[in-house]
Amino acid sequence: MSGKPLLEQLMQALRCLPGVGPRSAQRMAFHLLERDREGGRHLARLLEASMERIGHCGRCRTLSEEAVCALCANPRRSDAQLCVVESPAEVAALEQATDFGGRYFVLGGRLSPLDGIGPREIGLDLLARRLSEEGTEELILATNPTVEGEATAHYIGQMARERGIRVTRIAHGVPLGGELEYVDGGTLSHAFAGRRDY
Amino acid sequence: MSGKPLLEQLMQALRCLPGVGPRSAQRMAFHLLERDREGGRHLARLLEASMERIGHCGRCRTLSEEAVCALCANPRRSDAQLCVVESPAEVAALEQATDFGGRYFVLGGRLSPLDGIGPREIGLDLLARRLSEEGTEELILATNPTVEGEATAHYIGQMARERGIRVTRIAHGVPLGGELEYVDGGTLSHAFAGRRDY
Repeated sequence: MSGKPLLEQLMQALRCLPGVGPRSAQRMAFHLLERDREGGRHLARLLEASMERIGHCGRCRTLSEEAVCALCANPRRSDAQLCVVESPAEVAALEQATDFGGRYFVLGGRLSPLDGIGPREIGLDLLARRLSEEGTEELILATNPTVEGEATAHYIGQMARERGIRVTRIAHGVPLGGELEYVDGGTLSHAFAGRRDY
Repeated sequence: MSGKPLLEQLMQALRCLPGVGPRSAQRMAFHLLERDREGGRHLARLLEASMERIGHCGRCRTLSEEAVCALCANPRRSDAQLCVVESPAEVAALEQATDFGGRYFVLGGRLSPLDGIGPREIGLDLLARRLSEEGTEELILATNPTVEGEATAHYIGQMARERGIRVTRIAHGVPLGGELEYVDGGTLSHAFAGRRDY
């Protein structure tokens, strides 16, 4: 550790956390040092252990400290449905919001040839193997509605269709509680074009 | 560490940081694990070292990894003015905002007899010694304008006056850029009663 005062170094290090600027970093450092040293020590131990021991599930690529994560290892979940997302945070969000009882596959990114991110980098070889071996009946595309997200969804949809698997995409449109007047144009035009019988 | 998944424990531990709820803790954990493991390890090392090695300055009681902090050790600062604050964060705030060139004394709390916090607990024995020995000419009271803060200021003001030291209190009133209409009643009545010749 360099010659700068430890307190300054700590404030700087806290800024690696998302959403933490200089003011919050200062507040956090003072809070821990003055009111919660045990909490600070506990956090240090868990950060250390987590960075070392949490890797990726060999089956769905989500974050996991075991070789196979709890969701993949759960025998009560159905292999018939496989939901493809971009990141582990999205698995957590879907688990909290839905009663989906199938399996997941985490890309860890999206196709972006210009950045050197091709099918291999987002694990599509592993996905292809699963689609061929596991009796998947429905592949649910839950990538984000960005240009790369859509391209990735398109590519994976093709892979599944070639194997005779039904492909669905989660709905994009006006969020619940949203007012048309305040929804951005892209979302609104998407929602309008994607209208359904009522 | 207990039987809960490490990732859940990490999210829980991150919540010891002020202003971090379940959603931000989740976001922080995923961010570090997926995009900045080196940052996470660095933060762990600095938290650990800081909690162990940062103590309090023997002269002004602010946070310091040395026996005497950099401000107290600086020979270019004047002993004639001594500013009394409640916490180390307030020393940092004053240093950033003002060009004060004197010394500080950090109470680390405020008098609150019902909670067992008397003069000793906030270091007034040490302050008394400094006032007697250091040739202080002006004692600046910068405790917060709460009931206990005012009581503490009053008590310390007495101590200084008994030693023939001039006592000042930082101004409280309408903040710069504040509009009278939106300032709380207490502040407004304080500002009105404390009006000065113009």
